[in-house]
Amino acid sequence: MKIKGQPYRTIWVAEDGWRVRVIDQTRLPFEFALTDLATVEEAAQAIRSMIVRGAPLIGATAAYGMALAVRANSSDAGMAEAFALLRSTRPTAVNLIWALEEMRRHLTPISPEGRAGAAYAQAAKICDNDVAQCRAIGEHGHKIIARLWDDLIEKSPKRPDRINVLTHCNAGWLACVDWGTALAPIYMAHDAGIPIHVWVDETRPRNQGASLTAFELGAHGVPHTVIADNTGGYLMQHDQVDMVIVGSDRTTAHGDVCNKVGTYLKALAARDNGVPFYVALPSTTIDWSLKSGGDIPIEERDARELTHISGRNADGRVETVQIVPDGSRGLNVAFDVTPARYVTGLITERGVSTASREGLMRLYPERGKEAAA
Amino acid sequence: MKIKGQPYRTIWVAEDGWRVRVIDQTRLPFEFALTDLATVEEAAQAIRSMIVRGAPLIGATAAYGMALAVRANSSDAGMAEAFALLRSTRPTAVNLIWALEEMRRHLTPISPEGRAGAAYAQAAKICDNDVAQCRAIGEHGHKIIARLWDDLIEKSPKRPDRINVLTHCNAGWLACVDWGTALAPIYMAHDAGIPIHVWVDETRPRNQGASLTAFELGAHGVPHTVIADNTGGYLMQHDQVDMVIVGSDRTTAHGDVCNKVGTYLKALAARDNGVPFYVALPSTTIDWSLKSGGDIPIEERDARELTHISGRNADGRVETVQIVPDGSRGLNVAFDVTPARYVTGLITERGVSTASREGLMRLYPERGKEAAA
Repeated sequence: MKIKGQPYRTIWVAEDGWRVRVIDQTRLPFEFALTDLATVEEAAQAIRSMIVRGAPLIGATAAYGMALAVRANSSDAGMAEAFALLRSTRPTAVNLIWALEEMRRHLTPISPEGRAGAAYAQAAKICDNDVAQCRAIGEHGHKIIARLWDDLIEKSPKRPDRINVLTHCNAGWLACVDWGTALAPIYMAHDAGIPIHVWVDETRPRNQGASLTAFELGAHGVPHTVIADNTGGYLMQHDQVDMVIVGSDRTTAHGDVCNKVGTYLKALAARDNGVPFYVALPSTTIDWSLKSGGDIPIEERDARELTHISGRNADGRVETVQIVPDGSRGLNVAFDVTPARYVTGLITERGVSTASREGLMRLYPERGKEAAA
Repeated sequence: MKIKGQPYRTIWVAEDGWRVRVIDQTRLPFEFALTDLATVEEAAQAIRSMIVRGAPLIGATAAYGMALAVRANSSDAGMAEAFALLRSTRPTAVNLIWALEEMRRHLTPISPEGRAGAAYAQAAKICDNDVAQCRAIGEHGHKIIARLWDDLIEKSPKRPDRINVLTHCNAGWLACVDWGTALAPIYMAHDAGIPIHVWVDETRPRNQGASLTAFELGAHGVPHTVIADNTGGYLMQHDQVDMVIVGSDRTTAHGDVCNKVGTYLKALAARDNGVPFYVALPSTTIDWSLKSGGDIPIEERDARELTHISGRNADGRVETVQIVPDGSRGLNVAFDVTPARYVTGLITERGVSTASREGLMRLYPERGKEAAA
């Protein structure tokens, strides 16, 4: 995607051929800063502190983290240590584990001398693969939006002026390597001339909607409005949401969807108001071993992310302020699970399926043996 | 209620016998400041800018605003002007209209010379009446909590360590004259020795939960935890919410409940997880003329309340920071409507009823003629 006309990915290898460069997402939307990761420890810290975040980008960063590790120490023991370190950074997104296992499977048979080069090549392949998957998700999702737009025109007594899509958190290109998952269909629909408008949930406590999704959509010129997370139900009750699209950090083999906390509340409101609720995800986000979303480990983060908030003050400086009284505790649970029964469809790189084992099996028959029954 | 051991109401007449003193709620939780209202214009501005807020307190302030107006100009024309000014401050809470009509009905037959004294007396009566209603709501709600606590003990294999109640926004004593609506039962249960713990929705965009409810509960010593508005669904899915209690800004004769935006999402989650969802309200909050919540005017406030947030910086000063990128619009809808079918019960000063015309008629049979059928 482009920022001020210049194309970017969220992660790439710097000019020196080995350092890993990423956009520091903790400084958006008020500063667009790049930061270099030179060691596996720095890669792990970037994931933990959410300099990079979003399930696909966490996977890509972990892959490059393994490459940085292997460059410093290509022994089996070194790889195992790096694997464990990166694995420990965040518990919920399954792409992290998937990418690490991909790297390990690929590198283990290679002799230590050849591992560094192979690791960088494999991490690049994981990134390219993510871009291709997101593009395909965008194309499938674009068709759904186009069909809904046609329906809207047909049903409305006068031509509607826009189609309203609500999204939660950031499942855009900043969450991936390029394009995004939930936002890819939106970008494609917008580029194809459909008058799309996005309701952006601010997504407390870390405000990824207000700071990242709003930034992305603004940079691409997509009309959007930021709303409090509380507002989506009201908008759905008043026919101001035609569709919900969100991403996923982990999806079970039966279609339960774990995504940013609060997603479940929007799914309930969508069901109560007859609004289609779609989840866009690359198949790397599917945990075939799990039947129920209740088995997904849910990350609890530092309550300070809730009790304090950063923004730009009147002097133009970014400042952190406390918004909860001294002595009041906070709880910061990062994800929740939306049961498959509330999901209209899963938009994957291979097409759209129902949120069910049967639906996923039709798209991914080769997973039949490993998929939890 | 008490602050640092000293009993307070939220509104009273100052030592001079005519100025109206209120707690400036825009400065909580970091500063406990009082402010004096000397004119009807100041009273109107205090309501509009949310120096005072909460349906019952808005009504009480409007009543005293009429007293201030009548003190300056006790003519019929002066009263009509004050009525219109105060009526225009906020559109959703019906207590505002109710209190103004009470004042007008009471003052109109009185000669202009006698109106000022009568107005202060009537405003004081409205306040005392609100306190009595809130105390009664607390007693009825306390019984529900006590029963739920007994059930919990009976059902649990080992003695549970607490009962968890979730609330949204601030329907505590700061929203009323004393005691509160949704929080009155919580204070009484706590004072009676029930180990109650409150999940406090921060309540974006104005954060009345994080700043007012957390402050109140902390000042009274009630254990509580502030959560993002997104978190309640997760907690209900994990059996960590035994009951939801919220207030109401306007309730229809059929039991639809208009309250702070986001309430509806919690009601949906409560239904989906079998959690009782109660609404506590004095009958002054019931709009007997309305059948459907869809007919309640919903206030839209300045988007700046969403795009900017105030808190205490590292130097201890309260500062406002921008949290949405330049160029991104915001929408700030203040309320939503929870359909009666999702409400377990209405806790009023006369007892608990189902959220239905039949239920309300049993408690308020004298309203039968005016209540929308």
